[in-house]
Amino acid sequence: MSAKGYLLKEADLLPLSIGAALLGTGGGGNPYIGMLRTRELMRKGAEVRVVPLDALPDDAWIGEVGGIGAPVVGVEKVEEGGECYRAMRAVEEAAGVKMSALISAEIGGANSLEPIIAAAMAGLPVVDGDGMGRAFPEVQMTTFFIYGAKAAPAAIADDKGNVVVFRDMVDMFWLERFARDVSVGMGAGAGLAIAPMSMEFVRRTAVPDTVTQALRIGQTVLDARAKRQNVVERVVATTGAKLFFTGKVTDVRRELTGGFARGHAHLAGIDAWAGSEARIAIQNENLVLWIDGEPVIMVPDLIVNLELETGEPITTEILRYGQRIAVIGLPVHDLMKTPKALEIVGPKAFGYPDLTFRPLAAGPIAA
Amino acid sequence: MSAKGYLLKEADLLPLSIGAALLGTGGGGNPYIGMLRTRELMRKGAEVRVVPLDALPDDAWIGEVGGIGAPVVGVEKVEEGGECYRAMRAVEEAAGVKMSALISAEIGGANSLEPIIAAAMAGLPVVDGDGMGRAFPEVQMTTFFIYGAKAAPAAIADDKGNVVVFRDMVDMFWLERFARDVSVGMGAGAGLAIAPMSMEFVRRTAVPDTVTQALRIGQTVLDARAKRQNVVERVVATTGAKLFFTGKVTDVRRELTGGFARGHAHLAGIDAWAGSEARIAIQNENLVLWIDGEPVIMVPDLIVNLELETGEPITTEILRYGQRIAVIGLPVHDLMKTPKALEIVGPKAFGYPDLTFRPLAAGPIAA
Repeated sequence: MSAKGYLLKEADLLPLSIGAALLGTGGGGNPYIGMLRTRELMRKGAEVRVVPLDALPDDAWIGEVGGIGAPVVGVEKVEEGGECYRAMRAVEEAAGVKMSALISAEIGGANSLEPIIAAAMAGLPVVDGDGMGRAFPEVQMTTFFIYGAKAAPAAIADDKGNVVVFRDMVDMFWLERFARDVSVGMGAGAGLAIAPMSMEFVRRTAVPDTVTQALRIGQTVLDARAKRQNVVERVVATTGAKLFFTGKVTDVRRELTGGFARGHAHLAGIDAWAGSEARIAIQNENLVLWIDGEPVIMVPDLIVNLELETGEPITTEILRYGQRIAVIGLPVHDLMKTPKALEIVGPKAFGYPDLTFRPLAAGPIAA
Repeated sequence: MSAKGYLLKEADLLPLSIGAALLGTGGGGNPYIGMLRTRELMRKGAEVRVVPLDALPDDAWIGEVGGIGAPVVGVEKVEEGGECYRAMRAVEEAAGVKMSALISAEIGGANSLEPIIAAAMAGLPVVDGDGMGRAFPEVQMTTFFIYGAKAAPAAIADDKGNVVVFRDMVDMFWLERFARDVSVGMGAGAGLAIAPMSMEFVRRTAVPDTVTQALRIGQTVLDARAKRQNVVERVVATTGAKLFFTGKVTDVRRELTGGFARGHAHLAGIDAWAGSEARIAIQNENLVLWIDGEPVIMVPDLIVNLELETGEPITTEILRYGQRIAVIGLPVHDLMKTPKALEIVGPKAFGYPDLTFRPLAAGPIAA
């Protein structure tokens, strides 16, 4: 990668969305619609440059954007496309600044594409990085907020022309609460933009290089498919992931409450895991994996379900009875594992007071 | 009243709040806390002038403010006091204008005092009038919105320092929806300010002279009490109201859903109504009165419950088994009875498709 990054090509969009879906750990929404929108914008001449964290000066303003809402809804309620763009413009106006580049709240799932779409509309570059290195269900669960980003002004926009500005917020938890409530009123699919961050702050706090990482993972999947190799094995071999379980989905319980898809999936082991049982807790994303009652992977580390035959990442909203899946685990970036970060994204923050985070063995998660 | 109105005196606050509670038709929240806050501000030197609708030039900007939230909550969750003021300042900033005066969304209940408190804090006059001539549960149910006030920019503020701006709204129903959702997140007690209105618009659309009207009603109640007269009879005689029922409360069903107190009260007739039964439907305010199964008063006309012995207005949140009450009816202002208005505040708008509005005989409702 050059110091100035690279132009995103149309051919990058499919692998990027596959890699993003995998890093979505079951959540973050399906990037497919966003991929089509980005392609449409590119075919109309829009160019989006992916720039590394050291490409812009310290005082450049960076806008973090992302869709907000339950991914289950996203399957049926398609975004209009300009939601994040309009929210970002409202933040610019409220803050009295102009953004120099955009960055993703979360690289996992549909939000990998949201800043790219907004950047294509605004003629801005996107920063190669994000606020999670994965996907998480709540607004405050980014490295940006964990390490002190301002909670206001932020803004949310829907597909109909409604724009709500969070002008003064006591803290990021209040922002999450109000943004969540408004997003539910907006039909649980809306674009959120947070307060401008300086490039200097983003450089210190973003999970680096994750756009490129998602792209590489997707290219590995496509290459393995083209060569008729076992995709799960290739992904495990090239990402530093570990295969934890293979099984058949025997039960999925999922309900949409307070704007979230919450539930559990149960798996009966097959092949090397025949006779074992696994359970995965879900809040939009996969939170905890238990095998035979033992917690073996937990947030913030990544729990990824891949379809056994095709290696296709299975998002929680399409998880269903009878699917045969491989469950792989990937260690999350170190910025997500500090004591400060674990307060926000560790198992206790997700309502598991008895679980103390035990990290997976560290290692590079992309080739 | 002089062309320039009058300064509100500390001695006006008790009668004003009694009259406002009566015009609240059971809802609008109890004005008692607001009365104490206004008194405190006055004792610190704040002056609030009540000006008639013709006192200001056509192009003066008028700010409509009011508390939003279920009145049941207001009993326990006391407002900090500056909610409406902060919301109004946020609207000024978003709209790029300065307000010349404030006006009440609804004269009924606690919202009679909210613009007075905000006006005392801002050093502005209040306009003698309001958007309902009574109280109603939803944001769009004002003459202002019925006759075309803009839905944005509006703003909502809580007691903690959170301020949310409704920057672009498709219409007033979306504003109601988002403001309601955010107010629930704010603990169901918050201050809402809507977009600036020109004095010319307010002059055409406000229910006129209702601050003075509330004051006169309260003075009548206090005078009757001082003279040990029958308060209900005095109120009926001086307001053009009609006594519809006297009875004992036999049952109150009330639940707090979606930020509203909804329910029913049942009454067993006493005195002239012995043997009869009445039922009152509630959504924060009294909506419909049925006597022996026949609907006799319905929104937007005013249904007011007064304690039989003291003439004290009974708000729905303090309505309880065993109370002996007089139910009086008052015709609403003509601006609330046009076909356009009835679409928003008629019985069908409140979920009674089988009820067609039959107005009470018109007449002045204040002495």
